[in-house]
Amino acid sequence: MKYSVLVEVRLRPGIADPQGSTIERSLSTLGFDGIGGVRVGKSVRFGIEASDEATARAQVDELCARFLTNPVIEDALVSIEAA
Amino acid sequence: MKYSVLVEVRLRPGIADPQGSTIERSLSTLGFDGIGGVRVGKSVRFGIEASDEATARAQVDELCARFLTNPVIEDALVSIEAA
Repeated sequence: MKYSVLVEVRLRPGIADPQGSTIERSLSTLGFDGIGGVRVGKSVRFGIEASDEATARAQVDELCARFLTNPVIEDALVSIEAA
Repeated sequence: MKYSVLVEVRLRPGIADPQGSTIERSLSTLGFDGIGGVRVGKSVRFGIEASDEATARAQVDELCARFLTNPVIEDALVSIEAA
């Protein structure tokens, strides 16, 4: 079966996010108020062929740990749905 | 009221994604098979203070159009929930 996967790679809480801070500082200049806590991450979308959803999830989890994230500073949020 | 916002900035369909292609080529070397259509985007999370959800969404949509995306090559997927 084919599944659609979305992996959101985020910096762990407490890890400095200079890109997010820069966006946050720029917002008031542009006239946007009341926005805070900006954090920037990566989103990776792909399709995976697997026999069932548990197998797909196991493969994606391994992929995240080995390849898509740096586990020291990042974690991954995975969503899988049948395509 | 305070809302949590997630903006996923994606390359539009048809726009070349060299980062995604590189990931896809590397996967078979690492032993991951059956994965295709890799696309890499950005995820931006933040909190916004607004009187209701429609106001929050209008502000976020304007923010996406003016600042977070390049509308020529990117589009944005917005999710908003009460924090």
